[in-house]
Amino acid sequence: MADKKKRRRAYSDSEDASQPFKHLLKSDDQILQILKSFSSTSSSSTSKPLTLADLSLSSTCREVSDLSLSSVQSAIESLVLQLTHQILSGQGFSFTVPSRSSSNQLYVPEVDRIVLKDKCTIRPFAHISSVRKTTITARILSLIHQLCLKNIHVTKRDLFYTDVKLFQDQLQSDAVLDDVSCMLGCTRSSLNVIAAEKGVVVGRLIFSDNGDMIDCTKMGMGGKAIPPNIDRVGDMQSDALFVLLVEKDAAYIRLAEDRFYNRFPCIIVTAKGQPDVATRLFLKKMKTELKLPVLALVDSDPYGLKILSVYGCGSKNMSYDSANLTTPDIKWLGIRPSDLDKYNIPEQCRLPMTEQDIKTGKDLLEEEFVKKNPGWVEELNLMVKTKQKAEIQALSSFGFQYLSEVYLPLKLQQQDWL
Amino acid sequence: MADKKKRRRAYSDSEDASQPFKHLLKSDDQILQILKSFSSTSSSSTSKPLTLADLSLSSTCREVSDLSLSSVQSAIESLVLQLTHQILSGQGFSFTVPSRSSSNQLYVPEVDRIVLKDKCTIRPFAHISSVRKTTITARILSLIHQLCLKNIHVTKRDLFYTDVKLFQDQLQSDAVLDDVSCMLGCTRSSLNVIAAEKGVVVGRLIFSDNGDMIDCTKMGMGGKAIPPNIDRVGDMQSDALFVLLVEKDAAYIRLAEDRFYNRFPCIIVTAKGQPDVATRLFLKKMKTELKLPVLALVDSDPYGLKILSVYGCGSKNMSYDSANLTTPDIKWLGIRPSDLDKYNIPEQCRLPMTEQDIKTGKDLLEEEFVKKNPGWVEELNLMVKTKQKAEIQALSSFGFQYLSEVYLPLKLQQQDWL
Repeated sequence: MADKKKRRRAYSDSEDASQPFKHLLKSDDQILQILKSFSSTSSSSTSKPLTLADLSLSSTCREVSDLSLSSVQSAIESLVLQLTHQILSGQGFSFTVPSRSSSNQLYVPEVDRIVLKDKCTIRPFAHISSVRKTTITARILSLIHQLCLKNIHVTKRDLFYTDVKLFQDQLQSDAVLDDVSCMLGCTRSSLNVIAAEKGVVVGRLIFSDNGDMIDCTKMGMGGKAIPPNIDRVGDMQSDALFVLLVEKDAAYIRLAEDRFYNRFPCIIVTAKGQPDVATRLFLKKMKTELKLPVLALVDSDPYGLKILSVYGCGSKNMSYDSANLTTPDIKWLGIRPSDLDKYNIPEQCRLPMTEQDIKTGKDLLEEEFVKKNPGWVEELNLMVKTKQKAEIQALSSFGFQYLSEVYLPLKLQQQDWL
Repeated sequence: MADKKKRRRAYSDSEDASQPFKHLLKSDDQILQILKSFSSTSSSSTSKPLTLADLSLSSTCREVSDLSLSSVQSAIESLVLQLTHQILSGQGFSFTVPSRSSSNQLYVPEVDRIVLKDKCTIRPFAHISSVRKTTITARILSLIHQLCLKNIHVTKRDLFYTDVKLFQDQLQSDAVLDDVSCMLGCTRSSLNVIAAEKGVVVGRLIFSDNGDMIDCTKMGMGGKAIPPNIDRVGDMQSDALFVLLVEKDAAYIRLAEDRFYNRFPCIIVTAKGQPDVATRLFLKKMKTELKLPVLALVDSDPYGLKILSVYGCGSKNMSYDSANLTTPDIKWLGIRPSDLDKYNIPEQCRLPMTEQDIKTGKDLLEEEFVKKNPGWVEELNLMVKTKQKAEIQALSSFGFQYLSEVYLPLKLQQQDWL
């Protein structure tokens, strides 16, 4: 009977009694003080980011920038004029296209991004191997020119369908679209070609989306869908102390419902898995305009770190635009491999890493962006050694709200990020 | 030279000159009149939907309904009390669980939904084959009870991670969760267990999300993310004449940017592909509260029709909750197989159907929900005969804005839906 009673009590109190480390938590006011000082040092240190021009690199790099629609239009018109002169002078019709192959990519540790070097290839019309690609390039340029005149946005899929006969498959029109960005020296968003939206944002942020003012503290639990076209996003205002970048939906929903951003003023953003271009641009814009530190909450597995790296230093595919797409100095808050033992994540909530996971982890250890952060190397080494991974959701084993009520507050209090 | 001039003119005017059927368009005011009369007949005809109770069915059906959190809590407590009596009286410990196997499913044409019949199975604790499942059921009931006490929402993934050792994999906890819904006679959303959000909404709709009022005309181009928890959605107001249900992102973005909802008052919603539970519940709520007709814009392929059918009459997996999840009387606006010729979609924008596509199409022809709509049967027969499919994006071959400027207005003007 005594045993039964004990069991019943343990059962009803289980959620609170089993929340390890809760006793370490200071008051919210004390944690807020810690965050305020972090936020202010962070904004002063990032106020003057390095650019490629500040460095004396041995090879020249090619970078694109945001151009206005009218500048894109002029750039296309001058290019066509130049081509016409070329043809009239008897030199034939050819484009000079920056190479985007991996041999032309470079990781620059000073700016912590992958960038494109300056190798170019000639794409002549009068050659059997390049006549199709040259034609596609001309067609894409003409379509972009139409977008400039109409001032509308379209998706890559729309673009493909305007001339299926020529493009044959979407990979071809997509690739040439990136070529055109490089050729014109502008970002893909400047071309008004957008990718489908995926990300959501909630918390202490006010911004304008296509002229409408959006208050992200008043977006309920669903949050605001991140607009696909960053050029119509503006007027960002915030009293947040940091941006919390969350890998997955489930954790985002937990934090949105608990209105975590009201306890610790922050902006919560997620791309629901792999970062899409719109979310990357949105994060970058928040970092630049609001000068807030960015803390990342990802799964403790190689893909979590890989996602962090795409936000932080870019993907090889779009290295020509890494300056606009990457957000420097993202801190790895959690779930880190060392957290598994530190927070006593139960064995059954840890998953064994597959062969592929371990290979990906080892490959990451060779990447420059990991190497330059000794803390990350240590964590990743631990992951590969223990061969264990864990999702953010593993924290639910201590109760559904352990993430928002204990884990994150304690992380913030202890400034436990790398 | 003359030829050159002609080509140049054709080039610059191409977008407008090549927009077939634009000359058929009446003025927006005339189209609005058509929509208004459609919208009013639609709201009066659906004002008294049939329920299963209105029918004299040979077999009894099991349906769940939305219950308040406190009712769910009481239901769990009475169930446990009943089990205790059972055990004390020496009958042992067992759950009576409604069967969700396909032999227990029924399509009811009168209400146009798949429903669950009333077969049940006994799940005894004292049997080797069911001891685990019985334990899992008890554990899930206890977790749901905690959610009721705390009044929070969690995802299915969270639920799984609270006891990985017992559940072993998420399929097991997910399946028992559906069992528990059936046992308690309530919807899964009543249990406060939610799926990740996916859908977005934009247009002439105002609603409250977790206490915040959201005006969907002021959500820019990104729109509002549909909240994962329908029970915190309320106060819907709208001056729209119809709901436009869009299968995919790209078309949604086009319509949002063009603010199509201001030209023809409507609410535009998409689940970005396969319909998720949150979007289905949201659509249903709009239909019920606002009494608006729903027009669907999907790809012209078997999956487009399948998606339409999930919105319309439910999925087999959640047939116990079809009354809450399905939106009756969705009209198939386009892209319909007959539109391919009618709108002169160029051959190169049509795709050949694969063997699998054709099989899926033929299977659909056997489904009751298709059979009962002769127009749909005709369209589907045409698709299977021509072996051609097309995406919504195929309309981009007539210019990026052909969808919003010609195709949809003409469809509305001609009341061309089935």
